[in-house]
Amino acid sequence: MRFRFLPNEGRFFELFETQAAKVLEGARALKELSEHYDRVEEKARRIKKVESEGDQITHDIIERLNRTFITPFDREDIHALASGLDDVLDNVEGVASRLTLFQVQTITPEAVELVAIIERSCVAIYDAVAQLKDLKKIREFCIQINDLENQADFISRNTTARLFHEETDFRELIKWKEIYGRLEATTDDCEDVANILEGIVVKNN
Amino acid sequence: MRFRFLPNEGRFFELFETQAAKVLEGARALKELSEHYDRVEEKARRIKKVESEGDQITHDIIERLNRTFITPFDREDIHALASGLDDVLDNVEGVASRLTLFQVQTITPEAVELVAIIERSCVAIYDAVAQLKDLKKIREFCIQINDLENQADFISRNTTARLFHEETDFRELIKWKEIYGRLEATTDDCEDVANILEGIVVKNN
Amino acid sequence: MRFRFLPNEGRFFELFETQAAKVLEGARALKELSEHYDRVEEKARRIKKVESEGDQITHDIIERLNRTFITPFDREDIHALASGLDDVLDNVEGVASRLTLFQVQTITPEAVELVAIIERSCVAIYDAVAQLKDLKKIREFCIQINDLENQADFISRNTTARLFHEETDFRELIKWKEIYGRLEATTDDCEDVANILEGIVVKNN
Repeated sequence: MRFRFLPNEGRFFELFETQAAKVLEGARALKELSEHYDRVEEKARRIKKVESEGDQITHDIIERLNRTFITPFDREDIHALASGLDDVLDNVEGVASRLTLFQVQTITPEAVELVAIIERSCVAIYDAVAQLKDLKKIREFCIQINDLENQADFISRNTTARLFHEETDFRELIKWKEIYGRLEATTDDCEDVANILEGIVVKNN
Repeated sequence: MRFRFLPNEGRFFELFETQAAKVLEGARALKELSEHYDRVEEKARRIKKVESEGDQITHDIIERLNRTFITPFDREDIHALASGLDDVLDNVEGVASRLTLFQVQTITPEAVELVAIIERSCVAIYDAVAQLKDLKKIREFCIQINDLENQADFISRNTTARLFHEETDFRELIKWKEIYGRLEATTDDCEDVANILEGIVVKNN
Repeated sequence: MRFRFLPNEGRFFELFETQAAKVLEGARALKELSEHYDRVEEKARRIKKVESEGDQITHDIIERLNRTFITPFDREDIHALASGLDDVLDNVEGVASRLTLFQVQTITPEAVELVAIIERSCVAIYDAVAQLKDLKKIREFCIQINDLENQADFISRNTTARLFHEETDFRELIKWKEIYGRLEATTDDCEDVANILEGIVVKNN
């Protein structure tokens, strides 16, 4: 690859690794919250803080992009990857905040399962981003992420269908429809990140 | 136009025509489902299959874009057009899947009408995309698509207003609000495609 | 800045100022509607007209962009700024139209407050866009817009939580959940515009 010997471009790889680690930190905190569903407000505030830290990293990447003439891969891909990672973390925080906003007292097994899938997708995203410099094994991680999205899609569709069939309280229906929708949207965002990463591999390999 | 004599670029035109034909196939299947509302699960699965095939074509276009140095029109427009067509088909499938998820037993005349408008928009999109090489008559098709979007907007606004006024079952209200919203979003996506096509005409004519 | 002596590029600055003025006109009309909540249909139609005029300006900017080789700042930023301003006005109109569609009889103090925040954000956007040629003081306006978004976020989260706790009529819950959601989305769009403006400052200063 032509960019290997341009040392100061390495900063982008570091920044992306930091951003992906922050996304994973958010996903892990949401997993912990879903599996030990107590002190919800406090834990959601913690996730909000992680998301703000992620915003700052995204901002740093965009600012560096705007100041840098030569970049390790296409400018549009750097922008898309930073925005894509940011979207995942925004949605993770959005799930946590809705659990408090809607004053959800008990979490459902399906929500716990969907959060676990999101966390596994974020592990795969982190692993793929950590390989960006060498472009190795990224495809395998992307296939994993796509599989996880399919699993999440299957669970959320069935759960939503059951919700409409069984739920008799309109408040509960509206709440859970939104929470499941947002959980599925998060795995869609993970798939978008995988697509961006695959595009980078195709161009630069 | 400068690109007319670069033979291997023609593959993009073919791929876009195949993608637009796939979008139209999805829209026609949804029209058939809405007009003959039976075996809904089976027909929705069929539309899901069409949407997956469309995903593959989108993927082929993006991959080809990433591997090609000289393109028949601006790279960003190729990317936007492929993504825009993909969004239309995603929403068409989203409507079909909600009809099964929400276990909708009877379809409303307004939904049938909105689906018919979507199908007509997809015919116009296909016709416009088929003219991309010559850039002829694309504007006329775009005007048609804009008119159809206005019609859909008018119907879905009035229907939603009536729904809120008349529907006494909260489940039905939530279901139909989402279905009408998604039908209107599909015509918005068609209009986005028309705007991208107009941009290409302006630049290259 | 290199572009200062290219006279015909000035047209972009004028067009953006006209577009930002149109967005502000829409926000002011929505503020007037929220504070004097009568003749709602007529006032919403007026806002729809402002939004259509805004669409035309957006279209002019994109068309000019497609026809112009040398632009005062990066093409992608011109496109992003025009689209971002357009999104703000679309959401302003979306709020007005939902007030009529949902036949909202009485507006809540929280909605009035959120609309006032949107109007103040649009003043700051206009002021920032009017400085684009000199790139002065834009950062200050962007900080203002970010602060306003944080305020709106706080209000809309608390209001939504209360809504779920207190509202006993499912129609009202669905209506207001969507209206508050759209009001908050509008301030998010204002923040997106601020981010685009900051990016332009970073690159060109």
